[in-house]
Amino acid sequence: MFKINENYLKLPGSYLFSTIGKKVAAYTAAHPEKNIIRLGIGDVTQPLAPAIIDAMHKAVDEMGVKETFHGYAPDLGYEFLRAAIAKNDYADRGCDISADEIFVSDGAKCDSGNIQEIFSLDNRIAVCDPVYPVYVDTNVMAGRTGNYNPQTEQFENVIYMPCVAENNFAPELPKETPDIIYLCFPNNPTGSTITKAQLQEWVDFANKVGAVIIYDAAYEAYISEEDVPHTIYECEGARTCAIELKSFSKNAGFTGTRLGYTVVPKDLKCKDVSLHSLWARRHGTKYNGAPYIIQRAGEAVYSDEGKVQLKAQVAYYMNNAKVIYEGLKSAGYTVSGGVNAPYIWLKTPDKMTSWEFFDYLLEKANVVGTPGSGFGPHGEGYFRLTAFGTYENTVAAVERMKAL
Amino acid sequence: MFKINENYLKLPGSYLFSTIGKKVAAYTAAHPEKNIIRLGIGDVTQPLAPAIIDAMHKAVDEMGVKETFHGYAPDLGYEFLRAAIAKNDYADRGCDISADEIFVSDGAKCDSGNIQEIFSLDNRIAVCDPVYPVYVDTNVMAGRTGNYNPQTEQFENVIYMPCVAENNFAPELPKETPDIIYLCFPNNPTGSTITKAQLQEWVDFANKVGAVIIYDAAYEAYISEEDVPHTIYECEGARTCAIELKSFSKNAGFTGTRLGYTVVPKDLKCKDVSLHSLWARRHGTKYNGAPYIIQRAGEAVYSDEGKVQLKAQVAYYMNNAKVIYEGLKSAGYTVSGGVNAPYIWLKTPDKMTSWEFFDYLLEKANVVGTPGSGFGPHGEGYFRLTAFGTYENTVAAVERMKAL
Repeated sequence: MFKINENYLKLPGSYLFSTIGKKVAAYTAAHPEKNIIRLGIGDVTQPLAPAIIDAMHKAVDEMGVKETFHGYAPDLGYEFLRAAIAKNDYADRGCDISADEIFVSDGAKCDSGNIQEIFSLDNRIAVCDPVYPVYVDTNVMAGRTGNYNPQTEQFENVIYMPCVAENNFAPELPKETPDIIYLCFPNNPTGSTITKAQLQEWVDFANKVGAVIIYDAAYEAYISEEDVPHTIYECEGARTCAIELKSFSKNAGFTGTRLGYTVVPKDLKCKDVSLHSLWARRHGTKYNGAPYIIQRAGEAVYSDEGKVQLKAQVAYYMNNAKVIYEGLKSAGYTVSGGVNAPYIWLKTPDKMTSWEFFDYLLEKANVVGTPGSGFGPHGEGYFRLTAFGTYENTVAAVERMKAL
Repeated sequence: MFKINENYLKLPGSYLFSTIGKKVAAYTAAHPEKNIIRLGIGDVTQPLAPAIIDAMHKAVDEMGVKETFHGYAPDLGYEFLRAAIAKNDYADRGCDISADEIFVSDGAKCDSGNIQEIFSLDNRIAVCDPVYPVYVDTNVMAGRTGNYNPQTEQFENVIYMPCVAENNFAPELPKETPDIIYLCFPNNPTGSTITKAQLQEWVDFANKVGAVIIYDAAYEAYISEEDVPHTIYECEGARTCAIELKSFSKNAGFTGTRLGYTVVPKDLKCKDVSLHSLWARRHGTKYNGAPYIIQRAGEAVYSDEGKVQLKAQVAYYMNNAKVIYEGLKSAGYTVSGGVNAPYIWLKTPDKMTSWEFFDYLLEKANVVGTPGSGFGPHGEGYFRLTAFGTYENTVAAVERMKAL
């Protein structure tokens, strides 16, 4: 008789955003007349930029003609896209990353879930707390953790690094030695960042203890301050210890278009085996490339028109972030994030738990946010709001919250 | 110090089609004047049908306007596509599969590689020999097999089911009891099929021993004979033992467009845990849906115009299959397949090994095929040609082979 992967049963309940979706659906069914404003899931609302739309129409036309039709894509992604990424995201910032160290994929969620496969099950992971649930859940599913402890609300055999107001929501170097360290800056969910000097400490630490950093830079486009690194490869020594994940979802609105990439430098090795060769093998065996049309859309992100249009789009969302941040602050909320990130992290009022505040906000203001505790126990008592709504909805949501 | 997943090192050499690509590239570099005809990798050559192109232009336009923009897709895929699949591929054939048992993905290669994750590492797999390499390689990478034995050219702890001329390239029920059985009909690489009665024997066997069948029906559109099942759910009892994988790559030319789906019936359980819930959890945690534009393209496959246009496209390729089959047969080759499948399986002449014939054909006829031994030891002495080339190239390749 076949057996299932029992590790899946260690996961408590369902994926955070599915739970939120069900709660909102139930409320909407009971109160169909209410106008719900969703600032929960980090989904964008602005349409794709004209340069991207044009590039996709062109690519669709190519697919309809024998001479320009495209079948299977190259394993690592089309050269035109990988070259554009290497130039714009790395060379132009003085970082030494070549096109063939870039693996194009259908999104950073897949990559952040799949990357753990190339590591031993014996490896110990370290994550921030609160944290994007995918990092932990996928390691649980693979069997790299122990059981879930309902008392601590943590998995055994995982190093949790608290990110709290006292440390400015920036993790401290762990006392126990990890093998794999997940870092995400600008951070989801707290919206916090660390300086280049702080990130350099992590790179030095990883190189010293022989750990790999999985660096999720999905929100890089929202950085507005000078001293915040746009990529981990700005740090010296990152080529021997860091994998970087990037997404087109937030800088170009690709949540429903699906494109991302992962950088694995060829210098990153365990003895004589390069992680680049392992990830290439995984890509070649389990993946067949992102659609040609979507890769052309990705190329347009780096065109002159695309850059101008997307700068305006990011500015639109960052203005929303400012509206939320300043509006809630003036109403007496304790808020952080929102300066280099599209997320605002707020302390729930009156010692409400995160889910209590979720229900309260949904019922009293018809505003949906994300409970901080859904990201880990140190998120308890916090709440995440995203800047990805429309300006009108964002203003309305803040007004409703101020009126409570 | 972090450690790698050592299972990756059990894999000998590189992925089959990468090796072929490198050999062809080297030959082309040395002989740039030669006109190479590629009938190796199963990649399509006809452009996307007009109904699909129209649907994609429409969807691209929607993505450019705020009111019709689409962000994150539903976890399992859009209802419009899942409903079209449930109706056309199942209900219309009298099969009991509901829309919410269908999981839309970016292709059958990903699904066939990822599906093993929801099973225990203790499970024993059974595969045909020869076989599509992804089934075995992904189980090796997960650690579900033993080491590779260079003598037998097989992995330890895998049940191999020889598919040879003597059994009409159809596997026999294995003597050892497997937990997971991979079947692909119409078969890649041999182009063979089995009847509905034969498939019913497999379903009965799986239900009896408590095994799961992973049924890869990627080439279903090429079935021309009456008694060949289009889906495993035509068989009684399949809902309690079978997962089905489907691709849009070959029936609609989506190799570079990327769309597929997997069916997991809710009746398929291990004790009280449904595989449906595990696969849903995997989808929700590690995947973010196929692009909206591509899902609309998939919907067009089931439109009235789409069906007519794709029927013609499949007929085009099947005419190529006939050209290869009859041409080579008349030239004295021993050939099979090509009637219900776009693959022709031929015995290499003069007791050449598969790779010897590959080199011979590349050098003497400038035709690229796929060595049968690349699919497993019982593929040794065989060679696969695909019908996915253009008609002109197919005719030319057959003429060159006849002239040898």
